[in-house]
Amino acid sequence: MDFHNFFPVWNKLNAIHQEKILSTLVTRTVKKGTVVHNGGNDCTGLLFVKSGQLRAYILSDEGREITIYRLFDRDICLFAASCMMRSIQFDIIIEAEKDTELWIIPVDVYQSIKEESAAVANFTSELMASRFSEVMWLIEQIMWKSLDKRVATFLLEESVIEGKDTLKITHETVANHLGSHREVITRMLKYFQNEGMVKLSRGTIELADKTKLKELSEI
Amino acid sequence: MDFHNFFPVWNKLNAIHQEKILSTLVTRTVKKGTVVHNGGNDCTGLLFVKSGQLRAYILSDEGREITIYRLFDRDICLFAASCMMRSIQFDIIIEAEKDTELWIIPVDVYQSIKEESAAVANFTSELMASRFSEVMWLIEQIMWKSLDKRVATFLLEESVIEGKDTLKITHETVANHLGSHREVITRMLKYFQNEGMVKLSRGTIELADKTKLKELSEI
Repeated sequence: MDFHNFFPVWNKLNAIHQEKILSTLVTRTVKKGTVVHNGGNDCTGLLFVKSGQLRAYILSDEGREITIYRLFDRDICLFAASCMMRSIQFDIIIEAEKDTELWIIPVDVYQSIKEESAAVANFTSELMASRFSEVMWLIEQIMWKSLDKRVATFLLEESVIEGKDTLKITHETVANHLGSHREVITRMLKYFQNEGMVKLSRGTIELADKTKLKELSEI
Repeated sequence: MDFHNFFPVWNKLNAIHQEKILSTLVTRTVKKGTVVHNGGNDCTGLLFVKSGQLRAYILSDEGREITIYRLFDRDICLFAASCMMRSIQFDIIIEAEKDTELWIIPVDVYQSIKEESAAVANFTSELMASRFSEVMWLIEQIMWKSLDKRVATFLLEESVIEGKDTLKITHETVANHLGSHREVITRMLKYFQNEGMVKLSRGTIELADKTKLKELSEI
């Protein structure tokens, strides 16, 4: 059990709090595609990504999606425990993008420790601040960047995450990440293909000219 | 001195912390238009709005603005103290929209108390969570709502804030709140005027048919 290596404030906890966490800690393995947290209805606890990948997104009334942030190995997700803060008034959905191993501190346990320990409370603020920064970055992207640059940025990021230049991803999935429509993304990718930046085939997008994609994303 | 009525966790502070706050508390009066906090360069402290109105916004490289949230009497602004959290990596500008009276807890004082008091640390989290909720609302607006609905919503909100149906506001200011361009807002307002929803004259917008504006904003 090396959970304490994943929890940055572990050494600032007293023995009682450490014992309380270890005796209630839940280990969970979820398959790719599993919804780990479904908006305001759920309140699971603090999620620690041991390995795998999660995606947090919001949904419009019409069923459109946009990715708010993503979580990778060693990341911690606060919003699956959002019920412990009354000021959180939005519904986030958290879904496994890959098979994922999680540790979960149940919400009542985490909340009771957070109320007694300034270290844990401040750590919680830092977690939220870091998500806040991602959301502010997203607003800047949506507001000031045109969709072609956002698509180029997204493809380059995916390529880094996957460690590959050929991505197994549908146009629909790209649209859901970026809050766009499939038809719009398909049109954009065809334009990218004409410019030699990508090669499209059924279910895959190959990044054929990463330099050009990078230039586009940075303009 | 009725500062303690403005600080919800006052009674959870010990006498030393209370004394430290009272002996360092700054009172500041700023004129309409004053920039109270200018992004990452500034780190003033925790701002309490005694009376007045503040607006927090971000700026694009090209000088476009969009309002992130606004603060009214009794509101507290955390992001003028954002330097105390290393995970905050965005620049917000805070400007007085009206003559405003502030109390300020200097950042080093607040930070040292927050590190010792779980109550203050948790209060800080709640403050951030409540701004986070406003930012998520903003993303939903930008992503899923068309500009006509956003303009209608903004005019109705302004009318509530000002307690008037005739707003002294330029098209440029409306554009800066909504992250749009003046020309686009002028075109939209002229369309509203043709539909009988507003009456425009130099420097003012009169909400002529609030029922119709409300219907538009809610569709």
